[in-house]
Amino acid sequence: MGEFNVRSVLVTGANRGIGLGLVQHFLRMPNPPEWVFAGCRDPKGQRAQELQNLAAKHPNLVIIPLEVTDPTSIKAAAARVEEQLGGSGLNILINNAGSAQPRTLDNETLETMTQTYTINTVGPMLLGQAFLPLLKKAAQGSPGSGLSCSKAAIVNMSSYAGSIEDVYVWDFGQVVSYRCSKAALNMLTKCQSLAYKEHGILCVTLHPGWVQTDMGGSGSFKPPLTVDASVQGMLKVLSSISEKETGTFLDWEGKVLPW
Amino acid sequence: MGEFNVRSVLVTGANRGIGLGLVQHFLRMPNPPEWVFAGCRDPKGQRAQELQNLAAKHPNLVIIPLEVTDPTSIKAAAARVEEQLGGSGLNILINNAGSAQPRTLDNETLETMTQTYTINTVGPMLLGQAFLPLLKKAAQGSPGSGLSCSKAAIVNMSSYAGSIEDVYVWDFGQVVSYRCSKAALNMLTKCQSLAYKEHGILCVTLHPGWVQTDMGGSGSFKPPLTVDASVQGMLKVLSSISEKETGTFLDWEGKVLPW
Repeated sequence: MGEFNVRSVLVTGANRGIGLGLVQHFLRMPNPPEWVFAGCRDPKGQRAQELQNLAAKHPNLVIIPLEVTDPTSIKAAAARVEEQLGGSGLNILINNAGSAQPRTLDNETLETMTQTYTINTVGPMLLGQAFLPLLKKAAQGSPGSGLSCSKAAIVNMSSYAGSIEDVYVWDFGQVVSYRCSKAALNMLTKCQSLAYKEHGILCVTLHPGWVQTDMGGSGSFKPPLTVDASVQGMLKVLSSISEKETGTFLDWEGKVLPW
Repeated sequence: MGEFNVRSVLVTGANRGIGLGLVQHFLRMPNPPEWVFAGCRDPKGQRAQELQNLAAKHPNLVIIPLEVTDPTSIKAAAARVEEQLGGSGLNILINNAGSAQPRTLDNETLETMTQTYTINTVGPMLLGQAFLPLLKKAAQGSPGSGLSCSKAAIVNMSSYAGSIEDVYVWDFGQVVSYRCSKAALNMLTKCQSLAYKEHGILCVTLHPGWVQTDMGGSGSFKPPLTVDASVQGMLKVLSSISEKETGTFLDWEGKVLPW
């Protein structure tokens, strides 16, 4: 990852799980970003304690209040990030915030379907719109042609569970609202890659693996992958991809997954 | 289509376009269904005039008030259909009602995204739940093993525009909210096929072609396919598919489309 040169990154849902892991790994890099923006719903709350501890030690970590289902909150976050960047662009937007409800096809409702879609699919679209000017600025301010995450990128945290072809771990959980929202997020990523290519922005959708987080775990079952292993893998993938990977669906080891 | 023996079918969004075409073709069959249920939002309204004229001529056509985004309306429709069937099951549910807003990625909003998803994706899920007992009953009451549309089927009207792989006619219209909702509908269909297989219900998602309807047309542009040609093709496809096609994405000529 020697050439992975990220000056600024925003991670949503950054107070725990994979989001927190991403923030920690960015801060630990040999050449850490000038700014790591950590979006979370309630920066002062108990659930953001680890993020607060990190911020006390790392002056380049900025916690941003962000509710991804609220357009007003998103706009305020974009203004706050723009102010902090002081004329520079944002290299990477990582749409990591997400939600899953343990439902079967029989007990999904209008509410579980639309809530999950709003958080997992509509949020990433609104964030892409709001941060587009800063991502464009980063792309314009970076040397060379072609796309890369060192220039400008939108990274959407999807899931292999959203693969229509493979319907990963169906027998473990139907989670239909989650699967539908992630299939739609994959489509959004493809659309973003087509619309934002001319602006020099790479767009990719990732499966982080089945990770030991609040979302991944379930009772006594322990998922196979640690947050560290997942995040390390994903950062390696992000450091190496270019225009030929824009609009694709990759796992934490860089393997292309079927839609 | 000699073996296509449908005793009862419900078509949603049946007052115009492809929905109306489906109703007309079912009524014109050499062996028409005992009951054709035509769901529409406002059965007494001006936009349901053609459906009303048809019902005056065909006693086996029953117009059902149905708002696919309203769980109460869906439950009332299921009760009405059950009453009319008098102990028999429903062979086919065709989730045809749908909506598209002419938006680009830049001007989609929280509202356009969630409204389109609610109509195009959540509606078909709720209808599948509400009509499941009647579909099960039809499957149980049909002779032979295996799946077919003459036994019990859910047919979801999708679109090639919802193919993440091909992003059909992107240059004609980005319609991101529509594409995301149809990719999610394809995922729903796959989930329904897995969950409902044990009940003997075939589930398939169809691309009707680019059809001369209010939705398909745009200003002076004329889509390549007539409603008649599209509907005739789809009914031929439905008459011939079996368990090996459940959970697949087919066009009006029976061609398998990529997710």
